Amino acid sequence: MDECEKIVVDICRDAKKAARSMMTATSNVKNRTIATIAELIQSQKEHIQAENLKDIALGRENGLSEAMLDRLHLSDAAIDSMIKGLDEIVVLADPVGKVRELIRRPNGMMVGRMNVPLGVIGMIYESRPNVTVDAAVLCLKSGNSVILRGGSEAHHSNTALAALLQEALRQNNLNEKAIQVFPITDRKAIDILLKQEELVDLIIPRGGEGLIRYVSQNSRIPVLKHYKGVCHIYVDRLADLEKALPVILNSKIQRPGVCNALEGLLVHEEVAGEFLPMLITALRDAQVRVLGCSKAVALSEYIEKAKDSDWGTEFLDLCLTIKIVAGYPEAKEYIERYGSNHTECILTEDYSLAQKFIREIDASAVIVNASTRFNDGGQVGLGAEIGISTTKLHAYGPMGLEELTTRKFVVYGEGQVRD
Amino acid sequence: MDECEKIVVDICRDAKKAARSMMTATSNVKNRTIATIAELIQSQKEHIQAENLKDIALGRENGLSEAMLDRLHLSDAAIDSMIKGLDEIVVLADPVGKVRELIRRPNGMMVGRMNVPLGVIGMIYESRPNVTVDAAVLCLKSGNSVILRGGSEAHHSNTALAALLQEALRQNNLNEKAIQVFPITDRKAIDILLKQEELVDLIIPRGGEGLIRYVSQNSRIPVLKHYKGVCHIYVDRLADLEKALPVILNSKIQRPGVCNALEGLLVHEEVAGEFLPMLITALRDAQVRVLGCSKAVALSEYIEKAKDSDWGTEFLDLCLTIKIVAGYPEAKEYIERYGSNHTECILTEDYSLAQKFIREIDASAVIVNASTRFNDGGQVGLGAEIGISTTKLHAYGPMGLEELTTRKFVVYGEGQVRD
Repeated sequence: MDECEKIVVDICRDAKKAARSMMTATSNVKNRTIATIAELIQSQKEHIQAENLKDIALGRENGLSEAMLDRLHLSDAAIDSMIKGLDEIVVLADPVGKVRELIRRPNGMMVGRMNVPLGVIGMIYESRPNVTVDAAVLCLKSGNSVILRGGSEAHHSNTALAALLQEALRQNNLNEKAIQVFPITDRKAIDILLKQEELVDLIIPRGGEGLIRYVSQNSRIPVLKHYKGVCHIYVDRLADLEKALPVILNSKIQRPGVCNALEGLLVHEEVAGEFLPMLITALRDAQVRVLGCSKAVALSEYIEKAKDSDWGTEFLDLCLTIKIVAGYPEAKEYIERYGSNHTECILTEDYSLAQKFIREIDASAVIVNASTRFNDGGQVGLGAEIGISTTKLHAYGPMGLEELTTRKFVVYGEGQVRD
Repeated sequence: MDECEKIVVDICRDAKKAARSMMTATSNVKNRTIATIAELIQSQKEHIQAENLKDIALGRENGLSEAMLDRLHLSDAAIDSMIKGLDEIVVLADPVGKVRELIRRPNGMMVGRMNVPLGVIGMIYESRPNVTVDAAVLCLKSGNSVILRGGSEAHHSNTALAALLQEALRQNNLNEKAIQVFPITDRKAIDILLKQEELVDLIIPRGGEGLIRYVSQNSRIPVLKHYKGVCHIYVDRLADLEKALPVILNSKIQRPGVCNALEGLLVHEEVAGEFLPMLITALRDAQVRVLGCSKAVALSEYIEKAKDSDWGTEFLDLCLTIKIVAGYPEAKEYIERYGSNHTECILTEDYSLAQKFIREIDASAVIVNASTRFNDGGQVGLGAEIGISTTKLHAYGPMGLEELTTRKFVVYGEGQVRD
């Protein structure tokens, strides 16, 4: 075992040991610890920002893009929003120990399923240092240990935050190893982590598609992930076009760089003639580039002819494909071909078609008459999210605190034996 | 792509295509298909048994053990029990389409989570041909496609059953590719299957620990599994010893070869002197070999001194370890060291300790005052099970129909957009 392997395995062992005590920490203690974290971030703000500036300076030297540097930066606003996020997590219900129902079996035994922590969660992510605090606190609140492996470009920031997180654990008499940040940024350390299936229960990668594919192809530990969000809206023949316009604009424009933003619009041919001109005016005003099929191009000069490779592209930018379709079956076929199981939406006043769409479309969120941007943990009522899953095992869609737990069977007997 | 790879990939593609139509099949159609399967098994019984006899004869030639040949054999009783199992699955509730609750968000949107099929499930199992029918029907009822890869020693039996299962699908106008049996028994075909992460959603291996480890270390697809069941009972100082005796005997003796059978007993030192003599008498009558710690050996001549390697062994046989402990903390430590997260049980009348045990012990089923044999899908009320999971992701414990589904978010809006 070389030095790097030893470090990683020790971290995992310590995490597993800490997980045993975290499993039974009460909500009160966990909430007090989160409050301590918020206080420490406030009181150590200058130190954190000084360390963060080192990362920024190094990033600039290494030629990081302005967008990357922006994500890396812990501005006053970013720190305030981090603290606000912590306050929101404190008030969320703790899923641990919940038993939704107990049933009485014919032999008198009471049987239920109790939410319990998963154990040890490995987070592998890229530049944003705020993920360090977010992820740590969601894992803490759900009674898990967490191992955080952030990007090397945020190393100083993450190290400072790690020290603070562990101090908060110590102040509240919790095992400080429940939150650990990788001291090494060597990629090899990831490979070693991904093989600790006896010690780590779940890996959550967050970042670019390349990182996520790498993690999921090399992990022996279960991985919850989404590669990308290629989200569609189908504007049906019976859509309320006045409602449709703001929903489409919100889906595309409100935050184009995120996974639940709209990338492809499908429009029923019977309403395309009426709807597209007004839509295009609005899209042009918002400086959205539009790539369309031949029929769409024929309806507006603003629309550029789409290349084959444009369909199904995750632009993450002010760009949208528009295809005119003969009806729902063609829209469905298109979504099955180009969708990413992330978010799919229909705009229609047709009751039966809305029900059919909900039933038939396979995506982590299927939406009728509302923005695709609602596929988000906070928006669907989970309170917070650690990510969105487009894999179907364990969690499909936004993952909140409850998705960081599992359910064990509990049996209250009175001496029953099996026949 | 060589011939073997082409066959496997084609099977997976066909399965994925079939999964799309299975997703929306109604419970009525699925139940009628299961009834057809039962009728066909009855009417083709002679043919199935003739094919099964070919496997038995080959197995005998190849030197399979009598136990293996017994598991392989489709006797009249085995076929009757297969048909009875189908009738029981017909009456179970279909999980698909269920929305447990819809919540109304502050902006008026209704949000819920709908159970939907996982998609394509790969079953990899060993000799029992009844698993072919069981697994196929559970996947069918839960709206999934299934790819079945049984052991080469059951190849004739499985091929005959596959033809019958596909005939039932055709008779009910369902895509026959929703149930497919591997036509090749080459181990290489498993390796190829395990890499089809774009086409297959879940792998369930059932069989010996070697097979299961192989599958989980080589799969890019999520795997639900348990390696082994090393189940314990802790007899507390305040156990009702009259209840304790039948629970222990049932846990150990009723079916010693299965994963939820008792393997290790922990006895509080204050009751060991009173309890062990009567327990040992009963265990001796049942011809159970007993391996104990020095303190236990001192209490009964029948107990052999356990070797270090005996602790934590899954005997799957009439053999039991007994260790005398100073109390619950020592019992807990022992379970954490030697348990397999499968089934752990406490016998006590101490209310607070029972609650503590339920909360603190990490196993897929935690039982108070009842036999370990109750960790079973039928016994805990799932109706049927496709296996037991000791991995924590997605399912922990027995997996029934609902564990073969996932939950997508459904949103019923009226034009809402995000602020």
